[in-house]
Amino acid sequence: MNGRCVITVGDLGEFGVVARIAGRLPQGGTVLLGPGDDAAVVSAPDARVVVTTDLLLEGRHFRRDWSSGYDIGRKAAAQNLSDVAAMGAHPTAIVVGLGLPAGAATGWLDDLTDGFRDECHLVGASVAGGDITRSDLVVISVTALGDLGGRPPVTRSGARAGDVVAVAGRLGYAAAGLALLGARPTEPTGPTTPTTPTGPTTPTELAELAELIDAHRRPAPPYARGPQAAVLGATAMLDVSDGLVQDLGHVAAASGVALLLEAEAFTVPPVMREAARLTGTDPLEWVLAGGEDHALAATFPAGLDLPEGWTVVGRAAGGAGVQVNGVSLDRGGWDHFRE
Amino acid sequence: MNGRCVITVGDLGEFGVVARIAGRLPQGGTVLLGPGDDAAVVSAPDARVVVTTDLLLEGRHFRRDWSSGYDIGRKAAAQNLSDVAAMGAHPTAIVVGLGLPAGAATGWLDDLTDGFRDECHLVGASVAGGDITRSDLVVISVTALGDLGGRPPVTRSGARAGDVVAVAGRLGYAAAGLALLGARPTEPTGPTTPTTPTGPTTPTELAELAELIDAHRRPAPPYARGPQAAVLGATAMLDVSDGLVQDLGHVAAASGVALLLEAEAFTVPPVMREAARLTGTDPLEWVLAGGEDHALAATFPAGLDLPEGWTVVGRAAGGAGVQVNGVSLDRGGWDHFRE
Repeated sequence: MNGRCVITVGDLGEFGVVARIAGRLPQGGTVLLGPGDDAAVVSAPDARVVVTTDLLLEGRHFRRDWSSGYDIGRKAAAQNLSDVAAMGAHPTAIVVGLGLPAGAATGWLDDLTDGFRDECHLVGASVAGGDITRSDLVVISVTALGDLGGRPPVTRSGARAGDVVAVAGRLGYAAAGLALLGARPTEPTGPTTPTTPTGPTTPTELAELAELIDAHRRPAPPYARGPQAAVLGATAMLDVSDGLVQDLGHVAAASGVALLLEAEAFTVPPVMREAARLTGTDPLEWVLAGGEDHALAATFPAGLDLPEGWTVVGRAAGGAGVQVNGVSLDRGGWDHFRE
Repeated sequence: MNGRCVITVGDLGEFGVVARIAGRLPQGGTVLLGPGDDAAVVSAPDARVVVTTDLLLEGRHFRRDWSSGYDIGRKAAAQNLSDVAAMGAHPTAIVVGLGLPAGAATGWLDDLTDGFRDECHLVGASVAGGDITRSDLVVISVTALGDLGGRPPVTRSGARAGDVVAVAGRLGYAAAGLALLGARPTEPTGPTTPTTPTGPTTPTELAELAELIDAHRRPAPPYARGPQAAVLGATAMLDVSDGLVQDLGHVAAASGVALLLEAEAFTVPPVMREAARLTGTDPLEWVLAGGEDHALAATFPAGLDLPEGWTVVGRAAGGAGVQVNGVSLDRGGWDHFRE
């Protein structure tokens, strides 16, 4: 132990850390062989398995002073589970690669592990295995698996002219929360009641703004809407991770259509308008270009009666690219090599 | 482009990099939907999928001045494909997370990609998808999937007293190669004909020593021996990644047996004896404690006639731990948090 009497990852050693993590991870029925062997074995009843992976780096994708270990674990799991849902599949398991500083507190690691576990639990999945290594900064890789239940995967390439474009889940919340966090860059993590730079707000308003910051720290993907959309006959679908317009650009390109959005169709909640006022931003920019909320965007044949939770925001037509109110928007999202 | 007229990852941007990588990756029959969507879809005919993941960090698991991009890709894929084989399964696909410096040359990235591709090709697998992000140092996460072909997985916990212990593949080669590289820490990558610190060698000897350095740069796991062992009735099996004695310690603990090895049963090739002489090492230490060769170690019921490629090196008995010639060895491998 070090002088502060905090037990660190380095104190436990590699195998102690692995045992500690595995001890916090109950396995659900989809995991046939869990952590502790060379590999895990996961159920794949469909005889096909959906697989997706993401790499998250401290300082780039998360900050330990802005997000708790628990929120980082939730978010890292969420963005991969959401990709599985966006294929129309049910997530079954994740495996996690962790790079950890030797000085990381085991309590923080417990929180991170619990975050992975709880986000998986939301969708009936488990953390089936992983790998740990020492690293100067925290590195997290998550790979999620899922089952299609006999349905074809819903790809980005199936949208047809005449389809409607619909979204499910929050849009712009995480970007608004990040902007609020960015307005106070030197403060450590604490109760999520930010002071803001451009004017006082009431306690009620502060609590509502905290909801946006929480949205940045922990997305709430509409997981069940993915398989639901597949059953309804969605022609194309994706997870909005980089920004709606940019991500829909992939659907437009892969499907060979234009996607025409109507700005008025999007709901901008009052709290987001307030955050926009405080930070001097147009809230529609967050809705259309903000990443990390992991909403689902899908195209459906026209005339379907979409269930609650889906909002029609536009339509597909002949042509190319994405337009909002008739204006082409070529960019409006996040490029990991050009920020 | 930068002043040296080298096209970098930063020049291409995220989507340019993704397109460039995907363009170098032909998909085999096990991949039903390859790169380019939110997730890939991989065949899982067994209705179960084997999954394993590893995280590799520049400076810790590889050095760009010691290994080419191609070798790093081969090795990163190999260590995961080997974990799949060690369950008795056939690898089907990998997905890769890449953290890349913006200044990394696209030629280096091409080499890395080709390394992943070629190692997968050895076992009939493909690179089904991945994720890239910007990073100060190169970060590689690999997740491998595999199919058990209807057989139970061969775990670490099935060894019984009376079983024989057998190994397949190279042991100690990578450790010897690393020792030779460590003997010349300031030299850049070049032709693999090392000069050594403790005395001249003949050109033939130099070429043979280069084989060991190549073994460090690129393991040659005996992939086919994994499913073969499962068919033969192996009771326990694992991939030797941290060192034979340490890794067999996991089998002993999980199975509740002692594993008794005979030092004389191991083959130490002449080139390894020469490398040991030059670096002042006992070559048996490399064989018993060296990691990263990704040999397979398995236990089999006594009396089986093991095919060529398997060498019996000991037996399982009542008790605990691993002994070599009657001496208990509690450690002798690599702990990622205590080096």
